Amino acid sequence: MTRILTLLTDFGLADYYVGAVKGTVLRLAPGTQLVDLSHEVPPGDVAGAADLLAAAAPTFPPGTVHLAVVDPGVGSPRRLLVAQAGGHQFVAPDNGLLTPQLAAGAEAWSVTRRDLYLDAAEGGGSATFHGRDRFAPIAAALLRGDHPNALGLTIADAVRLTSPEPRREREGEAWVLHGHVARVDRFGNLVTDIPGDWVAVGTAVVEVEGYRVARWVSHYAELGPGEAGTLIGSLGTVELSLRDANLAAAWGVRRGAAVRISQSPQG
Amino acid sequence: MTRILTLLTDFGLADYYVGAVKGTVLRLAPGTQLVDLSHEVPPGDVAGAADLLAAAAPTFPPGTVHLAVVDPGVGSPRRLLVAQAGGHQFVAPDNGLLTPQLAAGAEAWSVTRRDLYLDAAEGGGSATFHGRDRFAPIAAALLRGDHPNALGLTIADAVRLTSPEPRREREGEAWVLHGHVARVDRFGNLVTDIPGDWVAVGTAVVEVEGYRVARWVSHYAELGPGEAGTLIGSLGTVELSLRDANLAAAWGVRRGAAVRISQSPQG
Amino acid sequence: MTRILTLLTDFGLADYYVGAVKGTVLRLAPGTQLVDLSHEVPPGDVAGAADLLAAAAPTFPPGTVHLAVVDPGVGSPRRLLVAQAGGHQFVAPDNGLLTPQLAAGAEAWSVTRRDLYLDAAEGGGSATFHGRDRFAPIAAALLRGDHPNALGLTIADAVRLTSPEPRREREGEAWVLHGHVARVDRFGNLVTDIPGDWVAVGTAVVEVEGYRVARWVSHYAELGPGEAGTLIGSLGTVELSLRDANLAAAWGVRRGAAVRISQSPQG
Repeated sequence: MTRILTLLTDFGLADYYVGAVKGTVLRLAPGTQLVDLSHEVPPGDVAGAADLLAAAAPTFPPGTVHLAVVDPGVGSPRRLLVAQAGGHQFVAPDNGLLTPQLAAGAEAWSVTRRDLYLDAAEGGGSATFHGRDRFAPIAAALLRGDHPNALGLTIADAVRLTSPEPRREREGEAWVLHGHVARVDRFGNLVTDIPGDWVAVGTAVVEVEGYRVARWVSHYAELGPGEAGTLIGSLGTVELSLRDANLAAAWGVRRGAAVRISQSPQG
Repeated sequence: MTRILTLLTDFGLADYYVGAVKGTVLRLAPGTQLVDLSHEVPPGDVAGAADLLAAAAPTFPPGTVHLAVVDPGVGSPRRLLVAQAGGHQFVAPDNGLLTPQLAAGAEAWSVTRRDLYLDAAEGGGSATFHGRDRFAPIAAALLRGDHPNALGLTIADAVRLTSPEPRREREGEAWVLHGHVARVDRFGNLVTDIPGDWVAVGTAVVEVEGYRVARWVSHYAELGPGEAGTLIGSLGTVELSLRDANLAAAWGVRRGAAVRISQSPQG
Repeated sequence: MTRILTLLTDFGLADYYVGAVKGTVLRLAPGTQLVDLSHEVPPGDVAGAADLLAAAAPTFPPGTVHLAVVDPGVGSPRRLLVAQAGGHQFVAPDNGLLTPQLAAGAEAWSVTRRDLYLDAAEGGGSATFHGRDRFAPIAAALLRGDHPNALGLTIADAVRLTSPEPRREREGEAWVLHGHVARVDRFGNLVTDIPGDWVAVGTAVVEVEGYRVARWVSHYAELGPGEAGTLIGSLGTVELSLRDANLAAAWGVRRGAAVRISQSPQG
């Protein structure tokens, strides 16, 4: 059966790095179907990569292996992880990239099988490109059917990112929701981390960077030309959008900006 | 037999969107060979996507399914289309994206099989990401061998874009051709919509944005350093180019600019 | 057996060009596994493409075909090459793109089988897009198992790029190494062409564009915040890096910049 490997890195598409990871996987696990998630993660943005992986990975079939290399600590003693949950396997540096999977109960292993790693005679052995020299061989071993137990030791202390959670607070008789812009997408939409089912859609007022939006729609085209509005986005959270334009650019909003939603007690 | 699915979107490569479409297709139609046409269509540029799809799709073998999602009307009542012609199948929103195929006589269906769509329990159900929740399942059904008749109803009124056609006009004793820049490519070449076989190559004068070019060559390297010239491009239309440089940037020309070609009566 | 074709071009990802090359290959050699090396080579940058191909290709398994099209001379009488070495096959214009393979002893053929090329009736025949009309059919023939001898004639005079080689010079009692920045990667690291085993790591001083670095580390994270340092990179050459930042941008260094390494006689 053809096995699928997804790839997620901050390597960009202009260097030889992505090609070398793919070539190594195909040399060590022939027949693997390679699927790029993204190589445009901003350099070193572990949290952004974790977010993207958590959103895309569940759409793949069980049996998929996910290789994620955003690894500013490459060459340092940081561990190399394998994780497993729901029939999916993940390979990544132990820097928080797998936080969502770990938080959801994935089992984790720290890889100890250094004999898998490419040495200089095999075109590897670098301290700066473990994507090619270590992560690709680990992924290939999983793709060939090795069990994680054959690759390393289970661990319970894998690194997890801590990020501010959205929260509900009572202010007088009303609820106020506090969250953040979790992602700015290519269209300039502001995807927040506030669950849509916390919100009294239609009556709540959303505030970000001094802007206030009280226009709720179900989809983008419901907005009038140049109108800003708020809706429930593709991951079930509150999202702000500007019709046929880039809201993030227009309002100067970036990932991480605070979002406040106020709603009446009736909400 | 391995089926091929091409993908064309305006999702960019930095978000989770392309990965989620691919994962969903591979989950619902295992073994599909995925081929990216482009994900760099400018946001909402339906006409540009139609153009690109029409140029690339015919190179693929019969049996290929083409999924094109540039869909500013996502979530609105716009229809979801399947079209078929020459052994190729197309899946796209009903917004004109399939204009060239329809103009060439493709049969079209409006999808009615809402049971195919992913609901919230399946990680779908959004009103903002039909690429994942509706288009990917439709494409997967075709890839599994479903006939379009099993997915929807044939329609004769699919949306078609109207665009200005190039035209020939008599001016005194001479013919004058009027067209537009249909595409600016990465090299800065101006690809027009004027068919090469309308033109008396060698004697005609091409004008765009006040610039005049009367130098005809067969290929780019025939031009001298820094020289501008005109030739018949890879889709058989008149094209302008600047040797080893970006003509569009140098002259400030964009897609849609008017192009005028004058030729002598002998032409 | 599934054959692999890698693709390397300067076509970018926004035009129809890459899709048309892929579609043509899949039409003529069904079942080929396509792997993108990069399509972001700067327009016409043959030397950059040669460098990238030489770094990525060896990671792939024997039997892989590599198609590289950076071809400012498209349509001119320049030859179309097939080369073969170590079980890998290469297809490229004869403009120096295969210099590293040729320098390492690859056998080369000039393609003469014009009957393979697509003519106008097959959607080809252009003088400006040999990627689709000539190179893709040549690659497909190799992927179908044709021997290079069936495609053209062996040649001994394929074009090779000449580039300044790094060199060692004696200055008084010390050795001085002279080289260049061979590549600036996405992270802003300066990858030089100076072999790491020429250098007395730890004592040598590296100079580029007036900056001097004498801090040697084994990996990036060994540097302190904002600190610049030098290390041996993933291809075994000296590399300069700035912790968590883009050194090339910060110092205004580009590919080709001169690099000087001085070391004591004890080095």
